[in-house]
Amino acid sequence: MRPSKRAPDELRPVSLERGFSKHAEGSCLVRFGDTHVLCTASVGEQTPGWLRGTGKGWVTAEYGMLPRSTNERMRRESAQGRQGGRTLEIQRLIGRSLRAVVDLKAIGERQITVDCDVIQADGGTRTASITGGWVALHDALAWMRKRGMVGDGALVDHVAAISCGIHGGQAVLDLDYSEDSEAGTDANFVMTGKGGLVEVQATAEGAPFSDDDLQALMALARRGIRRLVDLQAMAVG
Amino acid sequence: MRPSKRAPDELRPVSLERGFSKHAEGSCLVRFGDTHVLCTASVGEQTPGWLRGTGKGWVTAEYGMLPRSTNERMRRESAQGRQGGRTLEIQRLIGRSLRAVVDLKAIGERQITVDCDVIQADGGTRTASITGGWVALHDALAWMRKRGMVGDGALVDHVAAISCGIHGGQAVLDLDYSEDSEAGTDANFVMTGKGGLVEVQATAEGAPFSDDDLQALMALARRGIRRLVDLQAMAVG
Amino acid sequence: MRPSKRAPDELRPVSLERGFSKHAEGSCLVRFGDTHVLCTASVGEQTPGWLRGTGKGWVTAEYGMLPRSTNERMRRESAQGRQGGRTLEIQRLIGRSLRAVVDLKAIGERQITVDCDVIQADGGTRTASITGGWVALHDALAWMRKRGMVGDGALVDHVAAISCGIHGGQAVLDLDYSEDSEAGTDANFVMTGKGGLVEVQATAEGAPFSDDDLQALMALARRGIRRLVDLQAMAVG
Amino acid sequence: MRPSKRAPDELRPVSLERGFSKHAEGSCLVRFGDTHVLCTASVGEQTPGWLRGTGKGWVTAEYGMLPRSTNERMRRESAQGRQGGRTLEIQRLIGRSLRAVVDLKAIGERQITVDCDVIQADGGTRTASITGGWVALHDALAWMRKRGMVGDGALVDHVAAISCGIHGGQAVLDLDYSEDSEAGTDANFVMTGKGGLVEVQATAEGAPFSDDDLQALMALARRGIRRLVDLQAMAVG
Amino acid sequence: MRPSKRAPDELRPVSLERGFSKHAEGSCLVRFGDTHVLCTASVGEQTPGWLRGTGKGWVTAEYGMLPRSTNERMRRESAQGRQGGRTLEIQRLIGRSLRAVVDLKAIGERQITVDCDVIQADGGTRTASITGGWVALHDALAWMRKRGMVGDGALVDHVAAISCGIHGGQAVLDLDYSEDSEAGTDANFVMTGKGGLVEVQATAEGAPFSDDDLQALMALARRGIRRLVDLQAMAVG
Amino acid sequence: MRPSKRAPDELRPVSLERGFSKHAEGSCLVRFGDTHVLCTASVGEQTPGWLRGTGKGWVTAEYGMLPRSTNERMRRESAQGRQGGRTLEIQRLIGRSLRAVVDLKAIGERQITVDCDVIQADGGTRTASITGGWVALHDALAWMRKRGMVGDGALVDHVAAISCGIHGGQAVLDLDYSEDSEAGTDANFVMTGKGGLVEVQATAEGAPFSDDDLQALMALARRGIRRLVDLQAMAVG
Repeated sequence: MRPSKRAPDELRPVSLERGFSKHAEGSCLVRFGDTHVLCTASVGEQTPGWLRGTGKGWVTAEYGMLPRSTNERMRRESAQGRQGGRTLEIQRLIGRSLRAVVDLKAIGERQITVDCDVIQADGGTRTASITGGWVALHDALAWMRKRGMVGDGALVDHVAAISCGIHGGQAVLDLDYSEDSEAGTDANFVMTGKGGLVEVQATAEGAPFSDDDLQALMALARRGIRRLVDLQAMAVG
Repeated sequence: MRPSKRAPDELRPVSLERGFSKHAEGSCLVRFGDTHVLCTASVGEQTPGWLRGTGKGWVTAEYGMLPRSTNERMRRESAQGRQGGRTLEIQRLIGRSLRAVVDLKAIGERQITVDCDVIQADGGTRTASITGGWVALHDALAWMRKRGMVGDGALVDHVAAISCGIHGGQAVLDLDYSEDSEAGTDANFVMTGKGGLVEVQATAEGAPFSDDDLQALMALARRGIRRLVDLQAMAVG
Repeated sequence: MRPSKRAPDELRPVSLERGFSKHAEGSCLVRFGDTHVLCTASVGEQTPGWLRGTGKGWVTAEYGMLPRSTNERMRRESAQGRQGGRTLEIQRLIGRSLRAVVDLKAIGERQITVDCDVIQADGGTRTASITGGWVALHDALAWMRKRGMVGDGALVDHVAAISCGIHGGQAVLDLDYSEDSEAGTDANFVMTGKGGLVEVQATAEGAPFSDDDLQALMALARRGIRRLVDLQAMAVG
Repeated sequence: MRPSKRAPDELRPVSLERGFSKHAEGSCLVRFGDTHVLCTASVGEQTPGWLRGTGKGWVTAEYGMLPRSTNERMRRESAQGRQGGRTLEIQRLIGRSLRAVVDLKAIGERQITVDCDVIQADGGTRTASITGGWVALHDALAWMRKRGMVGDGALVDHVAAISCGIHGGQAVLDLDYSEDSEAGTDANFVMTGKGGLVEVQATAEGAPFSDDDLQALMALARRGIRRLVDLQAMAVG
Repeated sequence: MRPSKRAPDELRPVSLERGFSKHAEGSCLVRFGDTHVLCTASVGEQTPGWLRGTGKGWVTAEYGMLPRSTNERMRRESAQGRQGGRTLEIQRLIGRSLRAVVDLKAIGERQITVDCDVIQADGGTRTASITGGWVALHDALAWMRKRGMVGDGALVDHVAAISCGIHGGQAVLDLDYSEDSEAGTDANFVMTGKGGLVEVQATAEGAPFSDDDLQALMALARRGIRRLVDLQAMAVG
Repeated sequence: MRPSKRAPDELRPVSLERGFSKHAEGSCLVRFGDTHVLCTASVGEQTPGWLRGTGKGWVTAEYGMLPRSTNERMRRESAQGRQGGRTLEIQRLIGRSLRAVVDLKAIGERQITVDCDVIQADGGTRTASITGGWVALHDALAWMRKRGMVGDGALVDHVAAISCGIHGGQAVLDLDYSEDSEAGTDANFVMTGKGGLVEVQATAEGAPFSDDDLQALMALARRGIRRLVDLQAMAVG
C-alpha cells in the first residue's frame, strides 16, 4: 500500500485554474495534490540575441520555489546570489518540454517566458510545472492570436509530464514527497498529446534498475499523461 | 474622484486568509484589492550570531515579488544574482515593524523569519506585507506557545500598515498602482493596535509637501489602520 | 543634558568646504561635527537608458563608507561583492532628495552622479551627505552653465537634511552616534530652501511614538534645516 | 552512413590513461576519440556538514571545460562569476553515477571529489567523464586501501556511460559533436558492470520519439557500456 | 624637462599627517603632491584561520579608490560586485611590503588591517600607500605597546616605496599621472630603512629596457626612499 | 645542493608541444619539468570596446589552474564565483608580456586571447605560461597570415620568462615548488629574443635583498631565457 493510499496508477487530484493572474498574458495555478505551482506566460517583443534576424522566436522557462514552499524553510536564491543546480536543471527541462510543441517560426521574433513558481511543494513540482505551464502558454498564444500576432498553428500539440517511481517494489504513478523520499527509482516522463516521448529521465536512487522496470514505469506514465492531457483539454476547452 | 471610485478614506477590500500554507508554522494570504501577498512565518532554532548568549531571539523578514506579479514582467532577482535596493529597503521595513511588537527576550534564542512573497501586485505591497505578516507571526507564536516554547506575552500588540497619498490635491487612503503612479506625495504609516506610531515614511514625488499635508495623511492612515487591526483581530479571533 | 552637552536645538559645528577635489566638476567636504563626508558631483554625457529620447537628464547618488570610518572596522563592500541594504537605502534617499530640486529637463540628456563617501562617521551621515551633496551639485551645475550646457534655472532650490530624535524623553536635533544609539525615536527630515518637505522618515527604536512627538521633531528639524540652508548659501555665495 | 564512417554500434577509439596526474590520489585521462577529459579523484578528510556524525562519507563531482576545448572559444566560468546550468547539471549527473557504485559507509567520514575537466571536446564529454571518473575513483580507493583507510568492499561495481542518438533515422552509438548536432533524439545511459541501469536521459531534439526508439537506443548503449567496462577492467587490472 | 618642472631626482611635496582618523588605532593621510591616500591601521583580535594555534599574527592591506578620485569617474567596485585585478594586485603588494618589517610572532594571534583609500589620485597611489601605511602601522603598534599587547621589537624597520620611470629618455623619480602616461618604463621600488630591497617591479610600457636602465632607476629610487624614510622618522619622532 | 640536484643555472627539462589542441588557431603544451600548462590562442573578430575605431587590435591572456593541478586540491574559481587576486595578477602579467612583442596595428581590430591553463603545477606556472603562450600566439598569427589577415611583421620578437631565487644563499634558476617554498628571494624575469627586459619582479620572502642579489638573479635569468628562446625557435622552426 502506498503511503498516500492511492492505487499504483492513481494520480493525485489535479486541478488547472486558468487566468489566476491579472497581469500575465496566460496563467494557470496547477495543483497536483498538495503541490501548487503558479505558471505565468509573458509575451516579450524581443527574441534572444542569437535568434535575431532568423524570423524565429523562443519559448523559455524559469523556475523558483518560495522559501517556505517546503517543509523546512529554504534559503532564498536571490539572497544567496545564485540559482542552484537543481533550479537551473528544472527550468531547462520545462523550457525544452514546452518548445517541443511550439512552432517557433510561427511566433515571430518574440520570446514567451513561462515562469513556474512553486507556492507549495509536495513532490512532482517539475511535472506540475510542465503540465500547468502548457495551459499558461496556450492562453498566451490565444492572446497573441486575438491580436493577430500569430496564426492558428503556433501550438502544435499538448505536452504534459508525470513522475513515476518504484516504491516498495511496485511501480507507482505521481509520487508525493514522502513516497519520493522512499522510492528506489525515480523517473520523469514528458509526452505530447499524441503520445510521443519528449523527455525521459530515470534515476536509480539506491539499487540499479532494469529495462523491465523502465518499461513498467513508462506504461504507467503513459496512462497518467493521457489523463493530464484530457484535463488540459477540459481546462482550455 | 479617485480612479478607483473609492471614497478618499476607503480601503480596498481586505482579506486575511490564515493557514494558507501547509508547511509554515504560521501563514496568511493577505489581499488588499488586487495586491496579493503570501506571508509565512518560519520558526528557526538559531538566533543570529550577534545575539548568541544574550538569551534574546530575533524576528526578520524577507520580501520578494514573483516575476510576473507586475504589469510588465520583471527580471527574477535570483537570476540577476542580487536583491535590488527596493527589495532590501522593504524587507528591512517589514522586519523593523514586526519586531516593534514582539518581546525578543520571550522567544528565546530563536529566529522567526517572515517571508512576504508578492503573488500579484497592484500598489501597497509593503503595507499588505506588514499587515498580513503580523497574522503569520501571530500564528507562529501560537504554534510555539502550544509547544511550550514561549509564554503568553511574546506578542505585545498588533501592528499594521497603510499607504496614503495626495492624489488630485486630495489626501486619499490605500493607493492602488494607478493612483500611486499619479500621486504627488506618497506616504506609508505603520502603527500598533494601541495607535502608537512605529514608522512614518513620506516622500514628495513632485512638489514638496507641507506639515498640514502630512497631518492630513496621518489622520487618514490612523483611520485605515484601526480598521486593519480590527480585521486582524477577527482573523485570529 | 545631552551627552554632547549641546542644547536640544543645537546643531554640531557644520562646515562645507567647496572644491575639495581637484578632479570633480563639483565637490564639497561636509562636516557635521566628527562626521565627515566627501561629496563629489560628476557630469556624465549619458542619461540612463530608460530616459533616452525624452530630452531629460538624471541625478543619481552613490554612498559608501570607508572601512574604518566607524568605530569598529567594517568589511569593505567591494570585498563582500555587494552593497548592503543600508547603503542602497541611503543612496536612494540622497538621489531622491537632490532630484527634488533639479529641473531634469534643463540638464538635457546627461547624468550627474553625486558620490557621498564617508571619511569619518559619528552619526548623521545621510543628512550630511544630502546637505553637502547639494553644494557639490550646485557647483557642477555652475560648471555646466559656464560651458553653456545648462541655463539658469536648472537648480530650483536648496535642499538640506537633518536628523532628530527623542533622547531621554526630550526632542533633540542632529544626533551624534552616541546619542543616536540611545535615542527612542529616530527621524530624518529633508526640506527645501523654501521650507517644503521632501522626505520624512521616523522610526520607533523602542516604544512607539505619538503624533505630538513627530510634531516636536519636525519643528526642531525645520529650525536646523533653515540654518543649514543659510550655511549652504554662504558657502556658494 | 554516419559522418564519422563508424558502424552504428561502433564506439570511437577509447583510451583510459591512469596516473596522468602527479598529485591526485587517483587520476585518468580518458579519450573518446577527440573528446579528452582529465579526471582526478581527491580524498578529503571531511564529509559534508549534513553527514557529520553519521559515519558516512560522500563522493561528489565537479565538471569544467577549458575555454578553448570547444570549436568556438567559450567564456571562462570563473570570469563570468558563475557556473552555467549545463555545467551544474552535468556535474550532478557524474556525482550521482559514481555514488551508485560506492559504499559510502565504507569510506568513513571523508569526501572524494572527482574533478572532470574537458581538455578537448568533441561530443560525449559527460559520458567520458563518468567512464574515466570511475578509473580515477578506483585508484583513489586503492590508495586509501593501501593506507588502511577503507576495506575491500568500498567500490561495489563498475559504472560507465555512453550516449546514443537517432541520426538519419538510425540508432547510433557514441555520437561525436557533428553527429550530435544533427541527431533527432539524444540519450545518455549510465550502467553498472552487472548491467543495472543507473540513469537514463533521453531528449527529443526535434520530433518526439517512441518507446521502440528508446528500446533501440538502450540496446545499443548496453553493448557499448559492456565494452567500456571491459576497457576499465583492463586499465585497472 | 619634466612636465612637472621637477628635477629628475626630485620628489613631489610629501606630507604625512598622523592621527587623521578619530577611530583607527593608527592613521595617516599621506600626500605625494596631488595624490592623497588615507591610511588607517585597525587592530583585530583574530589572526587568519590558517595561522591559528601558531602564535603568529598577520598584517594585511586593502586598497580602494573613491569613484571620483580620478580624472574620469570610475565605477564603484562595490556596485560592480567585485574588486578589479589592479586593486587586488596593489593590495597584495602593500600587504607584503608592510609584513616585511613586522615581527609577526611579536604581535601574537592578531591581525592588523591597513586600509589605503585613495581620496585623490595623481599617480603613485601604491607607493604613497606603502609609505603612509607604514606610519599608520607604526602608530597602531604604539597603541598596542601602550596596552602591553606587544613588546618593543614588533616593528623591525621602516619601509617606504617610490616609483621611477624613463621619461623622454631620462630616468625620473616619483612620476605624477601625466608623466606616468608618457613614460617608456615604469618601475616601483620598495625598500627598508636600512636600504634592503623588499620589492622591485619594472615594466616596459613600450620598448624593452636594459640592465643599465634598471640600474639607473634603482639608484634614483634609493635616493628618494632615503628621503621618505627621513620624513617618516620626522612624522613619528 | 638544490633539492632538485640541478646545477644553479640549470633549467628543468623543457618541452614545447605545438598543435596540442584540435580547435585552437594556435596551441602549445609547455612543460617545465612537472609543471605542465596548456596554452591556446584564439582569434576573435572583435577588438575591445575602447579600441574600436582605432584600427588597433589587442592581445589578452587568461590564466587558470585545474583544481587538482596542485598538491592539495584547490577550490574551483568558477564555483567560488570569482577569480582570486593571484590569478588576476598572473593573467595581467602574461598579457602585458605577450603584447610587448606584437604589433597591435598589424593585427587590425581583432583580439587574440591566450588561455593558459595549468594541468599540473610544480612551480613556475607563470613563466611557463609566457614561454608557451608565445608559441601558441606565434601559430595563431601564422594561421592569420595564411588567410591574409595579417602581414609578416605582426610578431616582432620572441618573449620568454623564467623564475630565479636565492636558495640556501645561492642564486638558482627555474625554481620548482619545493625550492620556491624555501627560497629567500623570488624573482620573475621576462625578456625578448633580443635580450631586452620586458618585466622584472623581485620579492623578498624573508630578509630584504641587495642590488647585488638582483644583479646575480638577472644574470642567471638572462642565460635561462636565451635557452628558452632557442627552444621556442626550434619548436616553431
